[in-house]
Amino acid sequence: MYLEKIDSPADVKRLSVGELTLLSGEIREALLHKVSAHGGHFGPNLGMVEATVALHYVFDSPKDKLVFDVSHQSYVHKMLTGRRRAFLDPAEYDGVSGYSEPSESEHDHFVIGHTSTSVSLAGGLAKARDLQGGEGNVVAVIGDGSLSGGEAFEGLDYAAELGTNFIVVVNDNQMSIAENHGGLYGNLQELRESGGNCACNFFRAMGFDYRYVADGNDVGALIGAFSAVKDTAHPVVVHINTLKGKGYARAEQDRETYHWRAPFDLATGEPTAPAGAEGYDALTARYLLERMKQDPRVVAITSGTPSVMGFTPERRREAGAQFVDVGIAEEHAVALASGIARGGGKPVYGVYSTFIQRAYDQLSQDLCINGNPAVLLVFWGSLTAMNDVTHLCFFDIPLLGNIPNLVYLAPTCREEYFAMLDWSMRQTEHPVAIRVPAAEVSSREGFVAADYGELNRYEVVRRGSGVAVVALGSFFGLGEEVAELLKERTGIEATLINPRYITGIDEALLSELKADHRLVVTLEDGVLDGGFGEKIARFYGTSEMKVLNCGARKEFADRFDPEEFLRENRLTPGQIVEDVVTVMN
Amino acid sequence: MYLEKIDSPADVKRLSVGELTLLSGEIREALLHKVSAHGGHFGPNLGMVEATVALHYVFDSPKDKLVFDVSHQSYVHKMLTGRRRAFLDPAEYDGVSGYSEPSESEHDHFVIGHTSTSVSLAGGLAKARDLQGGEGNVVAVIGDGSLSGGEAFEGLDYAAELGTNFIVVVNDNQMSIAENHGGLYGNLQELRESGGNCACNFFRAMGFDYRYVADGNDVGALIGAFSAVKDTAHPVVVHINTLKGKGYARAEQDRETYHWRAPFDLATGEPTAPAGAEGYDALTARYLLERMKQDPRVVAITSGTPSVMGFTPERRREAGAQFVDVGIAEEHAVALASGIARGGGKPVYGVYSTFIQRAYDQLSQDLCINGNPAVLLVFWGSLTAMNDVTHLCFFDIPLLGNIPNLVYLAPTCREEYFAMLDWSMRQTEHPVAIRVPAAEVSSREGFVAADYGELNRYEVVRRGSGVAVVALGSFFGLGEEVAELLKERTGIEATLINPRYITGIDEALLSELKADHRLVVTLEDGVLDGGFGEKIARFYGTSEMKVLNCGARKEFADRFDPEEFLRENRLTPGQIVEDVVTVMN
Repeated sequence: MYLEKIDSPADVKRLSVGELTLLSGEIREALLHKVSAHGGHFGPNLGMVEATVALHYVFDSPKDKLVFDVSHQSYVHKMLTGRRRAFLDPAEYDGVSGYSEPSESEHDHFVIGHTSTSVSLAGGLAKARDLQGGEGNVVAVIGDGSLSGGEAFEGLDYAAELGTNFIVVVNDNQMSIAENHGGLYGNLQELRESGGNCACNFFRAMGFDYRYVADGNDVGALIGAFSAVKDTAHPVVVHINTLKGKGYARAEQDRETYHWRAPFDLATGEPTAPAGAEGYDALTARYLLERMKQDPRVVAITSGTPSVMGFTPERRREAGAQFVDVGIAEEHAVALASGIARGGGKPVYGVYSTFIQRAYDQLSQDLCINGNPAVLLVFWGSLTAMNDVTHLCFFDIPLLGNIPNLVYLAPTCREEYFAMLDWSMRQTEHPVAIRVPAAEVSSREGFVAADYGELNRYEVVRRGSGVAVVALGSFFGLGEEVAELLKERTGIEATLINPRYITGIDEALLSELKADHRLVVTLEDGVLDGGFGEKIARFYGTSEMKVLNCGARKEFADRFDPEEFLRENRLTPGQIVEDVVTVMN
Repeated sequence: MYLEKIDSPADVKRLSVGELTLLSGEIREALLHKVSAHGGHFGPNLGMVEATVALHYVFDSPKDKLVFDVSHQSYVHKMLTGRRRAFLDPAEYDGVSGYSEPSESEHDHFVIGHTSTSVSLAGGLAKARDLQGGEGNVVAVIGDGSLSGGEAFEGLDYAAELGTNFIVVVNDNQMSIAENHGGLYGNLQELRESGGNCACNFFRAMGFDYRYVADGNDVGALIGAFSAVKDTAHPVVVHINTLKGKGYARAEQDRETYHWRAPFDLATGEPTAPAGAEGYDALTARYLLERMKQDPRVVAITSGTPSVMGFTPERRREAGAQFVDVGIAEEHAVALASGIARGGGKPVYGVYSTFIQRAYDQLSQDLCINGNPAVLLVFWGSLTAMNDVTHLCFFDIPLLGNIPNLVYLAPTCREEYFAMLDWSMRQTEHPVAIRVPAAEVSSREGFVAADYGELNRYEVVRRGSGVAVVALGSFFGLGEEVAELLKERTGIEATLINPRYITGIDEALLSELKADHRLVVTLEDGVLDGGFGEKIARFYGTSEMKVLNCGARKEFADRFDPEEFLRENRLTPGQIVEDVVTVMN
C-alpha cells in the first residue's frame, strides 16, 4: 500500500504517475471507509483526490502555500501531510478536524470553514511574501460553489493585479452544496464545452491568465497543468473539471445528498442511525409550500443550503419560481429579500445561524433601515447545534439583537414558532427574524397563538415571587427545569417568563417584578456578550433588583462535547440553581 | 429656464433632445451652486447629469423603477422628481437628504448609502414584479467604484439568470472615490477602448446582454441606448462612459478631492471654512510612513477611502507597494490583512466605523478565529461623527466588541493612541482594533505610554469613592466633566477610570470598587445595546453595586443635530449628573 508510506509531501514526489494513480485509488478507498463510518464531507473530497495528489507532487508545501476554500475538501491534503492515520485507523478518526487547521500541521495556514475566503487569504500570503522579498508559490483552491460568494470576487479582483506569482485552482464540479446557481456558472459551462477556449472568459475578464484541464480527475493531466504554472510570475487560474463524489456511484448521482453525510452503510447508502422524527426543517417547508399555493407572492429563499429549511429537490420543484436558491451569497439573499418585500412580495429567507453573520451590513442597511417586512428564519441557533469552531451557531443574538428596527423572535415550541411565522408573514411593519428552535420539535400544552404586533410583550407563564426566570427560546425547557428544581431545593416558587422577543425588553413587566422579586435570572442559548440577558442587566442596573445572566462566555470553542460545554458554562439546571441560591443568600 | 418647469418626469418627456441638453446645463449650474455652498457629493452628480435626464426621458418612473447604487449620485434624479427647489433655493437646501429616500418621493424605492447594493435590491423588485405578474422596467444604476464590492457581484450573478426584464446601467467614470483598483477595471478599460466590442467581456461572461455608450454625457446617445433596452425581456447591461466632475474643470482634473466636498469657493476651489488643525488622519499617515521606512513588512490598507487614514495621493506614492487600496471591498480588506499578518507582514487597515460593519464574518472567521496579529484602525466611531442614517458610526462597539480573540482598544488622546498603535504593531498574539478618537486631537498631561499585553487592565486616573465613572475612549473628556460637576454639585469625589479595552472587563478592579463605591457610571460614545457598558452591568448584576449605563438608545437616527442628539440621549454632563444623583438618593 502506497498510502501507508506517505509521511509528508516528499513521499508523494517519489512516485511515478502510475503509482500516483494507484495512490489515488487507495486514498479514495480510505475516504469511503472513514466518511461512511464517521460522517463528514463526502463528495467534495472524493472529487478532489487526484487534484490534491497532483498539487503535492508539483508544489513544495509548506514553502509553496496551499489554501483550500471552505477547506471541507482538505481531507486528502491532510492524508498527504502526515495525518494519514486519522483516515486509516478508526481509533484515530477524531484525531484531526474536518477543516484546515494550522495547529495540526505546518502545511495548513488558516482555520477555514466559511466559503469564498481562500483567494483573499492567499492574496495576503502573496503580499506578505512580496513585501519581504520571499519566494514560493501561493495557491488558492476554490470551487464547489464558493465562487458565488462576494468575498471570492473581491479577492479575485485584487489578486489579478498582484503582478507576481499567484495561482487559483478553480475546482469546477458543477455543484454547490445543491446545484449551482448564478450567471457565472453559465460561463463555466461554456468554458467546459469549449475546452477552455471560448472567447468570453470570466477569469480572463478579471485579469487572470487561464488554463483548462478537461479531466480534473486525471493525475497526469493535472501534473502537467500545475507544472506549467508553477513559479509563474503573474496571476493565473487553473480551471479543472472534476466529478464530485467520484468513485462512489450513489454520490456521483445524488451529489447534493452526498455533499456531507452522517454515518451510512457503504453497501446500501442508508444512514446508520434511524431517521429521527420530522424536524423544524421539514415542517417549515411543508408550511411554506401550503402558503405558496394560496399566495403567489410567497417566496422562499436559500443561499445554497436549501435543506436547512426542508426544501428537498422534490419540494423545490413543487415550489417552482416561488423558491429561489441564490447560491452561497448571503449578502445578496438579504438584500434580495428586502427588495422583494418592498415590491409587495412575501420573502422568507432560511439560513443557518453561523452563516447569517455573513450579511450584517445587508441586515442593517438594505433591510432594517428600510424597514421592509421580509422574514428571516435563523436555524440551528444554539450553543450545541454545531461544534466546529468555524460553524458555531451562538453569535446570532448579539449580531441580530442589536440592529434597530429588527424584530427578532424566539419561539419556545412548535405552536409558537408557527404562530410567529404566520404573524411575521402577515404584518407589513417590520423586518422580522425568527430563531427557529434548535432542539427537537416540542409542543407546549395550552399554548395559544398570539399577535406579536405589540412589540416586546413577554409572556408570564407562571407567576411566583422572589425569583423570576426569563427563559429565552430554546432554553425555555431549561427554565422550566430550573424553576422546578429551585422549588424542590429551596421552596421558592419562581416566576417563569417566556420573553418571546430578543430585540427588546418588556419594561412594564420588568418594573412590576420589582415589587416582590429580588432576583431575575436570564437564560439564553447563546453567548452572553452583547446578548439578550445583558439588556436586562442594564435595565435593572440602577435598581435593587439583582440579575444573573446565564449563557456562554465569549470564546471560539472547538469540537467540544455539548454536555461538557454546558457544564463549563454553568448551564445545567443544578448549577444554575446553585448560583441562584448563592445570590439569594 | 427649463428646470423651473420640471415638477415630475412627465415634464422631462415633453422636451426635445436639444432642450434636454439645455436642461442638463441648467442642472449642472444648480449642482455647482448648491454643492459648493452647502457641501455634498460633487463629482458623482456632475458626471451623471445627462444619464439621469435620459433615464427619466426614456423610462416611466415610478412604474419603471430606478435604483441608484450608493445613491450619492441621485441629486439629479431628485431634481427631476419634484424636489428641484431643494437644489435651486438656498433656503430649501436642507429639504432633501443626500441619498435616495422613499419618504421624500414615490420615485425613490430604498434608503441607500453603502455601496454595491443596487443590483440585489433591484433584483428583489424584479422578482416581486414577476411573482405578481406585474409590469415595468427595473433599472439598477451602479458605478463610481461600487462594482468592486462583493454584494454587487452576488447581485449580478443572480440577476443574470432572472430571465425577465432587468437593466443594469454601469456608470463607468474610471474612478472610485480614489482611482479604481482591481482586475475588473482592466476589462472596463478594454471595453472602452474597443467601443464595447472586445470579445472578453465581464458582463457577458456573467450572463448579461450588453450595450456600450461611448459618450455617457451625450443625452441623445443615452436616449438611444436606453430606448433600445426599454422593455427588454432579459437582463442587459448598459455600460456608459462618463466624466466624473464634468463641467467644473478642477473636478475633472482632481476627481478624488471633488468626490465629496465641504463648502468651497467655486471661483478658486478653496474651502470656505479655514482648515482645522492636523487631525488623526494625517497623524496616522505620517506615523505609518515613518514605520514603513524602517520596516518593509509594514503595509497600510484601505478599502477605497485612503483619505480617512490620511493617505493623500502624494503619501500613497511615497508608500509605494506598502500602501494597498483594494477598492470598495471591506471583506477582502480584512481577509487580506489576516493573510498578510499570517505571512509575517504588518498590515494596518484603516476604515470608517460605518463601513467596518460590512466585514463582520471576515473579522470573525478570517481574522479572529485565526488569531492573526493584524491591526485595524476604526475611524470616526462616535455618536456625532456622521448623521446620515446610512452612515451612522455608532454600531462598531457591539459589532467588534463581542468577537472572541479580538482586542478592541479605545484610546483617550493622541499619546495613548500612538502608544496603542505602536504596541499593536509590535505584538504578535492578537488581532487588534483601535477606535481612533473621533474628536479633535487632544493630549493628556502626564500620560505614560504602556504595554497593552496584559489584557483588560483599566487605568484608574483618579481614585475617589462613592461613584466611579468609567469613561471610554472619546468620552473620556465627558467623564472628566461629569466627575467635576458631580463634585461641584454633591461633593462626591468620584473615581475616574479610563477602561482602555472595549472587549473585556477588569474584574479585579471592578471587584475592588465594591468596597467603597455604590455606583458605577459607564460612558460610551456609541449605542448602548450590546455595547461596553452592558458588560459591566452584567458583571455587577449579582452584587449590591448599582450601574448606570450612558450611551445612545438603539435607533436609526437621521440627520440629527449632534448637540440635540446627545441631549435626547441624556448625555450632557448636567443630565448625567442629575441621573447619578437620582440613583444615589
